[in-house]
Amino acid sequence: MTGDRAGDYRILHEAALRDYLAGVPDLAALLGAEPVSWSVTEVGDGNLNLVFIVKGDRGGVAVKQALPYVRLVGESWPLPLSRAHYEFLALSRQGELAPGLVPALLHHNERLALTVMELLEPHIIMRKGLVAGTHYPRFVDDITTFMAQTLFFTSDLALSAAEKKEGIAAFAGNHALCKITEDLIFTDPYRIAEQNRWTAPYLDGLAGALRDDMELHVAISRLKLKFMASPEALLHGDLHTGSIMVTEREMRVIDPEFAFYGPMGFDTGAVIANLLMAYFASAGHERSPGERRAFEAWVLETVEKVWTEFARKFLDLWRAGAVGDAYPALLFAGEKGATRLEAERQAYMQRLFADTIGFAAAKTIRRIFGLAHNIDFELIEDPKKRAIGEARAVRLARAMMVDTGAFAGIADVSGAARKLRDWQPEFAAG
Amino acid sequence: MTGDRAGDYRILHEAALRDYLAGVPDLAALLGAEPVSWSVTEVGDGNLNLVFIVKGDRGGVAVKQALPYVRLVGESWPLPLSRAHYEFLALSRQGELAPGLVPALLHHNERLALTVMELLEPHIIMRKGLVAGTHYPRFVDDITTFMAQTLFFTSDLALSAAEKKEGIAAFAGNHALCKITEDLIFTDPYRIAEQNRWTAPYLDGLAGALRDDMELHVAISRLKLKFMASPEALLHGDLHTGSIMVTEREMRVIDPEFAFYGPMGFDTGAVIANLLMAYFASAGHERSPGERRAFEAWVLETVEKVWTEFARKFLDLWRAGAVGDAYPALLFAGEKGATRLEAERQAYMQRLFADTIGFAAAKTIRRIFGLAHNIDFELIEDPKKRAIGEARAVRLARAMMVDTGAFAGIADVSGAARKLRDWQPEFAAG
Repeated sequence: MTGDRAGDYRILHEAALRDYLAGVPDLAALLGAEPVSWSVTEVGDGNLNLVFIVKGDRGGVAVKQALPYVRLVGESWPLPLSRAHYEFLALSRQGELAPGLVPALLHHNERLALTVMELLEPHIIMRKGLVAGTHYPRFVDDITTFMAQTLFFTSDLALSAAEKKEGIAAFAGNHALCKITEDLIFTDPYRIAEQNRWTAPYLDGLAGALRDDMELHVAISRLKLKFMASPEALLHGDLHTGSIMVTEREMRVIDPEFAFYGPMGFDTGAVIANLLMAYFASAGHERSPGERRAFEAWVLETVEKVWTEFARKFLDLWRAGAVGDAYPALLFAGEKGATRLEAERQAYMQRLFADTIGFAAAKTIRRIFGLAHNIDFELIEDPKKRAIGEARAVRLARAMMVDTGAFAGIADVSGAARKLRDWQPEFAAG
Repeated sequence: MTGDRAGDYRILHEAALRDYLAGVPDLAALLGAEPVSWSVTEVGDGNLNLVFIVKGDRGGVAVKQALPYVRLVGESWPLPLSRAHYEFLALSRQGELAPGLVPALLHHNERLALTVMELLEPHIIMRKGLVAGTHYPRFVDDITTFMAQTLFFTSDLALSAAEKKEGIAAFAGNHALCKITEDLIFTDPYRIAEQNRWTAPYLDGLAGALRDDMELHVAISRLKLKFMASPEALLHGDLHTGSIMVTEREMRVIDPEFAFYGPMGFDTGAVIANLLMAYFASAGHERSPGERRAFEAWVLETVEKVWTEFARKFLDLWRAGAVGDAYPALLFAGEKGATRLEAERQAYMQRLFADTIGFAAAKTIRRIFGLAHNIDFELIEDPKKRAIGEARAVRLARAMMVDTGAFAGIADVSGAARKLRDWQPEFAAG
């Protein structure tokens, strides 16, 4: 990988980007001779950045450049370029901890807020595949390895307290990205906010009920506080199925610009939430009744395995060699100590499970009543069908957030989802 | 206040210190003409630093300089000078938040790790007063104001998430001081460690029982993890009665060099623990049976009031104007919201109470089985009497740490202490 801090920030559109890449010898070598023959295509479909695919006769690269504002909204919503630095830092760390599960880094220029990465082809955004009803047999193993490795090895179980504090400080400056999450996930969907939207008129009543549901407001506020003040591990911070690229044989996690030290359940919950939304959206994508039942069964099985495999791998890492300052081995010597520590590990995972389903619920509700929706639901053309799927997802999410303790294990979550598959909500007027 | 970053680090003994202070015009003016006539006396009785009292014909100052090692142990235990920077930072913030309750800052030199402060006269270290059986009528009001103000206003209830993260990052580098706490409080007393000591042979059996008590090891490890990874507020970090200077009319909190963002209960628990130890040590200082009963009653009343007054003041601050990002007011509008938020405030304080008594227990056990003891017990000449007081304190501490939930309120703590006042431990051979 090459690095460069030189140059002032400027937005690199096609021609300028070509010139820039041509000036970096190893990138030029990778792409091939004759920069004029390289194709440069802007493909960013995210909300924040410019993303280019550049291809030459030898190979291709992906280039991501941060803009000084939220792309979706424009210059009226400024957003610091430093997020490219944090993304680069997170991607580097994730690449060490979960090799092969994030794109390879090829070049970074901090001042330009620009990162050049491995071109992922023929990978697609996983969410698109889920909308199409595709099964991903590698997904469970890969995502649980990614989460177990990145979360365990950046936690107090694996690090000294000093290393951990250095990590927290290194990402503390990424607070503008955290603030987006704090507002859009943990606050706005529960109040009247201009940016909110939902499938009207069907969900008008439900939107109003959420705004008036004080048990839910307490629950979301507790989760928000946990998000702000529980630096358990280095999170991806935006680990939904739109941040995952897949083929049937490979998976890569992309776009960790929301990375910071936060509660582990926020990452694990994001994956669970987005699978549950794919499940509840699935009926809306049927061309004939029951057509996607096999896909739906696979999704729920995947929900279960994401948790059980993650928990198994995380526990195995802990058992194999926790050299961090938490739960020091010397306090749990002997058979009695080993037995008691193993019980405590199970209790730790139970707390993490509760966080996971709480955050999963928060991630679900924001996609249905907040600013940013997802194509799982959005691509259901019939708004009533869409609202039915959304209402099912929200019913489960509300229970997960407020009655978290009633879900003793992941089978209670998938079981509750299965029961709601054919539940017919009644839509009162808003 | 004046500041200076110039000069390389060197230890300033009497003559060099006199020259240095004479070179700072406002300090020289404060002390009076004729530096040769100033008295310079080293008075540091702490474990880490040099402390001088300098007096001239006009006035006096206190000077604290960090040494690059632990004073108590010597150069074999290095400790970063940067702690003087963190102490200065914390003292500045505490002075803003709790005016009049910390010494006024007069001068700071970062490179020399040196701070000049208001001379506190005729204040004495509170612990000495407690050993002597002195009541401090101002103490409850002052310490609870100090804790409520410094903890509330550096928490997510009062700060934006960005301000909070900046604060966390600003203190993250103080990890060497945190490490002392992590080792000496949360680890060593529960294992065989060279530095441990206790009142032998009476407590040999109890020391062995603690090392073998896996419920206690789980409890202390949970507290340690909370200490490491719960940056709730800017803590003093070492808030025992040796860090508090008092007269019968005034109180000042000194020595915040262990300051960092951690769990609030660590500060509140420190105060409670040190009062409980004063209580259990008291019988050992009697010259005639029951002589100190009135003092002991005052101490237990103070334990109760420290919690109830702290909780009242903290809640009042929260109710009056929480502008932080946690529990946003707009989610709790209307009468129903206000009622539900008030219930949540009570639940928040109940969690903080549980943390408080857990940390209080940890602070107690370390003073009886770890490296650093305190004069409450140490000045009891008869080792058996001392051991009896210590065993009572440990019995309560073990219950507070392992059966935390059994203590619903502070009256349960003072009540349990009262019951143990005349409990006669049996000392088995170690």
